[in-house]
Amino acid sequence: MKVTLGQFLPELGDKGKNAHEMVDIMKQASNDHADIVLFPELALTGYFIQDVKHEMAESIEGPHMTYLMDKCRELKVNAVIPWAELGEEGHVYNSASLISSEGNLLGIYRKVHLYGTEKEVFTAGEQFKVFDTPLGKIGLMICFDLDFPESARSLKLKGADIILTPTNNMEPYQYYQRTYLRARSMENELPIALCNRIGLERHTKFFGESACYDNKGQTITELKNEPNVETAEVEIHDEKDRNLQYITNRMPNVYN
Amino acid sequence: MKVTLGQFLPELGDKGKNAHEMVDIMKQASNDHADIVLFPELALTGYFIQDVKHEMAESIEGPHMTYLMDKCRELKVNAVIPWAELGEEGHVYNSASLISSEGNLLGIYRKVHLYGTEKEVFTAGEQFKVFDTPLGKIGLMICFDLDFPESARSLKLKGADIILTPTNNMEPYQYYQRTYLRARSMENELPIALCNRIGLERHTKFFGESACYDNKGQTITELKNEPNVETAEVEIHDEKDRNLQYITNRMPNVYN
Repeated sequence: MKVTLGQFLPELGDKGKNAHEMVDIMKQASNDHADIVLFPELALTGYFIQDVKHEMAESIEGPHMTYLMDKCRELKVNAVIPWAELGEEGHVYNSASLISSEGNLLGIYRKVHLYGTEKEVFTAGEQFKVFDTPLGKIGLMICFDLDFPESARSLKLKGADIILTPTNNMEPYQYYQRTYLRARSMENELPIALCNRIGLERHTKFFGESACYDNKGQTITELKNEPNVETAEVEIHDEKDRNLQYITNRMPNVYN
Repeated sequence: MKVTLGQFLPELGDKGKNAHEMVDIMKQASNDHADIVLFPELALTGYFIQDVKHEMAESIEGPHMTYLMDKCRELKVNAVIPWAELGEEGHVYNSASLISSEGNLLGIYRKVHLYGTEKEVFTAGEQFKVFDTPLGKIGLMICFDLDFPESARSLKLKGADIILTPTNNMEPYQYYQRTYLRARSMENELPIALCNRIGLERHTKFFGESACYDNKGQTITELKNEPNVETAEVEIHDEKDRNLQYITNRMPNVYN
């Protein structure tokens, strides 16, 4: 599966500008013959939307989401599009939609593990989901989910072939991102692609280093801390280590 | 807590020789004013005991275990002593005993995750355990347990302040040991000490690299692949990162 990492700097509160930048990245992905393009967490709005969250949030049928879905169809590329989702009863979720190259919605994942003050902004999601697509079974998780081994494990147990992870990881957590990416790939024998944003917002520096890891925890590609769009080939049914067989060897009755 | 890593080469099937070597290491630990000494998995017998397992196994009241417990008292050092345990109804377990500096048995942990052909030799343990000691709450796990995030997580949820891990890790899994040590420490905000054996047995090379990690996944000490006894200071109530609070932020109702 050819995955494009669309590492960019979302402009806080400017959905129009961000959507256009995402389309430029989708064009590059299309030129690269990518199967799917992955953007950072909250790519459409920026991160610190506490004061304007209801102004920034839109449903999956909102104007910017509809525009981006249309572009997926035009450019014939699948995409993971993270945004502030306006859900039922006015709840706002930190979500990622999976859009097909026909412009159809394949599914929405709502972030389960909210970090720090995100809890004041967003309602937490209540399930991990795996989406069956012609590319394979795609599991989504978002940012802080990566820190919890239970997230990737839940996706693996639900049948994921690959995990795609939009993030807004900030300094000084570079080695957290790298360690957890490697560990989650290895312990679940799954490839993982992660797209982190870059740039300064308020006083917070986001460090990029978007990456793809194979199912043995080896780096396929890792970007630096600068705008970059890169397409990598990720094997989703790569050879596994027969001695490990972690899922077969689990002892779920023993776990706390 | 001062932890001595007793990294040595157990002689397959020679419990007498191994016990004496372990006592030499305990003497060094005692000279170093260590609080506790940690040995590799199956330190008393060596690894490949399939053909002689009932000859090699002994209960906690067996002669070599009694001898080693007496030495803990004499040398005034706590110890984690891994051995082939003869349990009820002739079952043999891949176990580790926690012995106090008064020579008392504080507890026994029986390895839950058996690796490869170990399943033909040992009966799997059925619970993770944390032992409350004057040094702190000590969780034990053994070797392949480290690969499963559920093991360290279970110990954390049971209140562990530190995890001690005897291993017999073999080539080419060096980066597995290192990655998982770091990830388990970070994701549970716990220090972990691991003692791996060295040397060749049958055609298998064990690579050592015994190590202590702090509760942020940073290496306190890491040995090489040679006989070495080293004592390291491990902070068991080290400062935690308030932004992470992984246990508080878990979402157990969502996990598969």
